[in-house]
Amino acid sequence: MNRKPKILITNDDGLYSAGLKASYEVLKELGEVFVVAPAVQKSGVGRSISIMEPIRVSKVHVNGMTSYAVDGTPTDAVIIGIHEIIGELPDLVVSGINMGENISTEAVTTSGTVGAALEAATQGSAAIAISLEVPDTDKFELFKPRDFTAAKSVLRKVAERILSDGMPEGVDVFNINVPSQPSAEIEFTRLARRLYVTRIEERLDPRGRKYYWIDGIEIEDAEEGTDLHALRNGRTSITPLTLDSTARIDFNKLRRWFDGGEG
Amino acid sequence: MNRKPKILITNDDGLYSAGLKASYEVLKELGEVFVVAPAVQKSGVGRSISIMEPIRVSKVHVNGMTSYAVDGTPTDAVIIGIHEIIGELPDLVVSGINMGENISTEAVTTSGTVGAALEAATQGSAAIAISLEVPDTDKFELFKPRDFTAAKSVLRKVAERILSDGMPEGVDVFNINVPSQPSAEIEFTRLARRLYVTRIEERLDPRGRKYYWIDGIEIEDAEEGTDLHALRNGRTSITPLTLDSTARIDFNKLRRWFDGGEG
Repeated sequence: MNRKPKILITNDDGLYSAGLKASYEVLKELGEVFVVAPAVQKSGVGRSISIMEPIRVSKVHVNGMTSYAVDGTPTDAVIIGIHEIIGELPDLVVSGINMGENISTEAVTTSGTVGAALEAATQGSAAIAISLEVPDTDKFELFKPRDFTAAKSVLRKVAERILSDGMPEGVDVFNINVPSQPSAEIEFTRLARRLYVTRIEERLDPRGRKYYWIDGIEIEDAEEGTDLHALRNGRTSITPLTLDSTARIDFNKLRRWFDGGEG
Repeated sequence: MNRKPKILITNDDGLYSAGLKASYEVLKELGEVFVVAPAVQKSGVGRSISIMEPIRVSKVHVNGMTSYAVDGTPTDAVIIGIHEIIGELPDLVVSGINMGENISTEAVTTSGTVGAALEAATQGSAAIAISLEVPDTDKFELFKPRDFTAAKSVLRKVAERILSDGMPEGVDVFNINVPSQPSAEIEFTRLARRLYVTRIEERLDPRGRKYYWIDGIEIEDAEEGTDLHALRNGRTSITPLTLDSTARIDFNKLRRWFDGGEG
């Protein structure tokens, strides 16, 4: 490649996250890097996009990086990054390193980290979402020093492969999850169907009015071959994702079901 | 079926939408109906879930329906509806009828209407997302009287099929879109890859500070067989969706790509 590749970095933990800095350290050696991320933590927002509110952007200097703080979602940051900051499609968009894993079909639709990567892919860019498993109690400790060695190493490898050969055909996003105590092993995985059993906690506020917290308990029995299984067994999981979630079924059969000929 | 089926209705336009009432009118004839929806409009929030804020719920009477107003997202409404209001898995969750279409791979990840249906499917319920194409200028006119005849008819048909035979194997959600000027024709479709080309509008506020609006211009050339193509040709589109967006590729080939053996 003659010209320097352009790489956009974003996340859903906000500009101050140590994980963003870790990505920056890896990627600045591979190309020209643009950091555009939400000003504050935006977890669980999926691929939310701000269509009802306008967006402001501030150029700031954080953790030794020149960055753009977007007062919107990770998806907003990708859109602003591509169309306003860079002004053209980058060669690669990296979302993360997120503090806390993003696994299973649930992560794909609820994670801001993955949401940003899906938006990047829709825009036509190669895209990586990368997350680090952290203890539950640490999930919102964004500035706690952590060992990013394994995450940085796999990020470098996948980014280099993409910048050299492009994304493999049929893959829109790589969703990478690195265990907190990693072995050297990498496994290509499919999404686990489910990660949590939903639990709701009912509480009373100081004035005696009910309110609820949504919570979840992890499912114990991960199937082999899934991202959940790989991660819980200390292996780094790489899941290739497609934007196309049309069901893979026989449409003639579907038509017969609809017409009531089957059941 | 001996016992009356339990049906949860939600949406992303909020409790006051005429589309919600239209769903209610159809579904109350098919089972015991529970209406649990965001108190105000929550468009573009995808499958956002409130994990950082607690949720409040109010029992209200709106448009002749006893309903539960949730001060959260459509996904929050589904979770609260299933676990707190109904207390068990319903036989069917219907999200909509939304004012404005939800088509293409973009809708699946950014639409609150589809997001709620994906959450319902994850919880283990049969799920329908249904949307009505409206003129662009009407998208936020939630109370304008509209002709729901075609939408109600297809909703009744699909809901009846599901309650009688269950979802077809491999289908997690039906995403239904009804044209504003419908013919009688129904087409089973796949998701169009893209609907919009992103456009950003830069403006100055009264104090001279820049801000941005994210906007999009529709792509003109829809491929045959897609939801976009069906809808723009006046046909009702039914797209079967899967929760599993793992890319459909050969993992051995992927491993070779990773190892650098291919390019």
